[in-house]
Amino acid sequence: MALITNGRAIFNSYPGGFPEPGKTIIYDGKSTIDLDLVSLNGGVLVKTLELSIDPYLRTLMSQPTMGYKIGRPTYGPGIAVVLRSENEKLKVGDKFRISMMPHQQYSVLKEEQLGDLNILKNPYNLPWSTFIGILGMPGLTAYEGWRYYSKAKKGEILFVSSGAGPIGSLVIQLAKLDGLKVIASAGSDEKIKFMDSLGADVTFNYKTTNTAEVLAKEGPVDIYWDNVGGETLDTASANANICARVIACGMISGYNNNHATPLRNIWQVVARQIHIFGFHVSNQYPNEFYEFLEPEIAKGDIKYAEDRFLGLENVGEAMSRVQRGLIKAKAVVHVADEAH
Amino acid sequence: MALITNGRAIFNSYPGGFPEPGKTIIYDGKSTIDLDLVSLNGGVLVKTLELSIDPYLRTLMSQPTMGYKIGRPTYGPGIAVVLRSENEKLKVGDKFRISMMPHQQYSVLKEEQLGDLNILKNPYNLPWSTFIGILGMPGLTAYEGWRYYSKAKKGEILFVSSGAGPIGSLVIQLAKLDGLKVIASAGSDEKIKFMDSLGADVTFNYKTTNTAEVLAKEGPVDIYWDNVGGETLDTASANANICARVIACGMISGYNNNHATPLRNIWQVVARQIHIFGFHVSNQYPNEFYEFLEPEIAKGDIKYAEDRFLGLENVGEAMSRVQRGLIKAKAVVHVADEAH
Ligand SMILES: NC(=O)c1ccc[n+]([C@@H]2O[C@H](COP(=O)([O-])OP(=O)(O)OC[C@H]3O[C@@H](n4cnc5c(N)ncnc54)[C@H](OP(=O)(O)O)[C@@H]3O)[C@@H](O)[C@H]2O)c1
Ligand SMILES: NC(=O)c1ccc[n+]([C@@H]2O[C@H](COP(=O)([O-])OP(=O)(O)OC[C@H]3O[C@@H](n4cnc5c(N)ncnc54)[C@H](OP(=O)(O)O)[C@@H]3O)[C@@H](O)[C@H]2O)c1
Repeated sequence: MALITNGRAIFNSYPGGFPEPGKTIIYDGKSTIDLDLVSLNGGVLVKTLELSIDPYLRTLMSQPTMGYKIGRPTYGPGIAVVLRSENEKLKVGDKFRISMMPHQQYSVLKEEQLGDLNILKNPYNLPWSTFIGILGMPGLTAYEGWRYYSKAKKGEILFVSSGAGPIGSLVIQLAKLDGLKVIASAGSDEKIKFMDSLGADVTFNYKTTNTAEVLAKEGPVDIYWDNVGGETLDTASANANICARVIACGMISGYNNNHATPLRNIWQVVARQIHIFGFHVSNQYPNEFYEFLEPEIAKGDIKYAEDRFLGLENVGEAMSRVQRGLIKAKAVVHVADEAH
Repeated sequence: MALITNGRAIFNSYPGGFPEPGKTIIYDGKSTIDLDLVSLNGGVLVKTLELSIDPYLRTLMSQPTMGYKIGRPTYGPGIAVVLRSENEKLKVGDKFRISMMPHQQYSVLKEEQLGDLNILKNPYNLPWSTFIGILGMPGLTAYEGWRYYSKAKKGEILFVSSGAGPIGSLVIQLAKLDGLKVIASAGSDEKIKFMDSLGADVTFNYKTTNTAEVLAKEGPVDIYWDNVGGETLDTASANANICARVIACGMISGYNNNHATPLRNIWQVVARQIHIFGFHVSNQYPNEFYEFLEPEIAKGDIKYAEDRFLGLENVGEAMSRVQRGLIKAKAVVHVADEAH
């Protein structure tokens, strides 16, 4: 076999504010690879199938010391299939997930790049992209955060911001399973419809409806799952019930403005005995996570949604849209089908 | 017996900012009482011995609907001795504590005013004032907050603000017993000396020394016990270790300026996986609290300090000084000795 194109997304410049398509990350279609002859040096040759474009990837663009390097491929959580292997953990045809998959069509991965390797079983034949969404890091984040920090009691009131995103949409469904009343916000009417379809009791578009008014009417809030930070966190704190829990999952409203919005209502933490839990998802996917979610997803009882971008040419665009809230659901870049 | 003076501290006007002596709370020496003839209507006649002047009493001065009433006596945690009793829970000579003791020399207390009655045993013959200090609400606050939320591990680093106060000074000692390195701040050299005598490893006057510099050098902080809020909380958040715990006990820096200082570093809560625990002390004094502390205090192994004011004439002055940070230690108004 001969040289073929190995398309890649390349980090091109540090964004001051929002990442810009065609500037922050660019597509390089000139690189080539020989799939038969490329030497593995003990590693594996893989073909990328699906890539996850997550809000947190913005932090990898923020400083030279940590994260993306100018002129090098960007990376993030992804699924690939093994084409050749000199690593005993992986054999040809294995599908696996790692959290630092290079944004290129084909990669030779050394042992140390397989750090958090997950070989995927997929007994229900779900689309591979679910394993970077509801069955991947975002799903695990919702699952762990809810399980460890919600201390949810039936009849309590949850407020979740960015409730249509991959994390928020699972949080809504976990809370409904636990018998809570769910208030959920998002930034478009399409997202509102999606949240309604998940069983949320009160949904609203925070761009056209006043969050404080909704919470004053529908609260007080026992659990606030925070995906956005900023003003929304302040408003939730002002409408928190006594002994409320804030699950501080993410603060996307501050990612592109240097976290400019402070928390004015911090004093409510003492006044109302609020507990705030900042946490990071682990990279241990427990069996019960899959065993609980996979059949529910297969039956359609637990739902998810995706916003699919086709090809590595769209990584820059997808990154920008995720940060600007211009996506409808979990952002996935579909790179290739399983068969080659 | 005839009518005798029953001096009282009276709430006179709502303070905009700091309470002002002679204005916010005034002394009334014109009221009288006949200790033999006053009718009890099923209650108890008590003589006030010691009163606690705590930072939180400021909140009772903030709005007409809740707390102190204009023209009526102020109140707070206090110790009294029973002079006459028609209540079966109390007999003549009993010493007891309630958290809403009227600020007057003698009071007839009805059953409902005895809500959180604690009859005091005092097996080590400690001064009665300790039961509103280290063995009272402030001590219990330190004990419960440390026990439930510190998750302290030997070798970790604690930072405590207002470390010379009744709560902070016990927190320092509990942390040293658990094998932590203790950084403690306070606002005067006298307080620094006191904190040194408690075994704190690094002490500094936050008015003359830059908190950020101390924490950058001596941190990162695993546990921040926050008594003051405001800038100090922000600085502690910026110097927090991964998985730090913030025990949000009080935010006195905001009590007299409408909580004007927001928390800029709230995003660090996610970034560093910080847990913040706002809490209120319970009013359940468990036996082990006394059993642990009383002998240590009697031996002098656990220390406390008091700033004593003599007589109800000084309630207004004490309230003001507590809020302005012009006291050296636990503020106590000594009203009377046990014998009458
Ligand atoms: N703690 C962890 O371990 C962990 C792990 C993964 C992700 N996270 C965080 O969790 C949060 C949710 O992540 P996700 O993957 O489920 O993605 P997501 O919620 O879909 O995040 C993107 C969405 O955020 C919303 N958004 C953007 N800017 C906003 C702003 N200024 N105010 C309000 N909403 C804004 C937009 O939706 P609208 O249309 O609603 O505006 C956008 O579509 C993110 O903050 C992420 O960084 C944390
Ligand atoms: N959560 C609860 O259940 C609970 C229960 C009781 C008390 N509390 C709170 O716990 C905290 C400590 O109470 P405490 O009884 O032990 O009294 P304390 O610490 O002695 O409080 C008074 C001292 O606070 C300091 N202070 C005042 N304004 C300040 C400012 N702007 N910045 C920094 N320090 C300032 C002053 O000391 P300096 O000389 O150091 O400035 C002052 O002497 C208070 O915030 C109180 O409201 C909470």
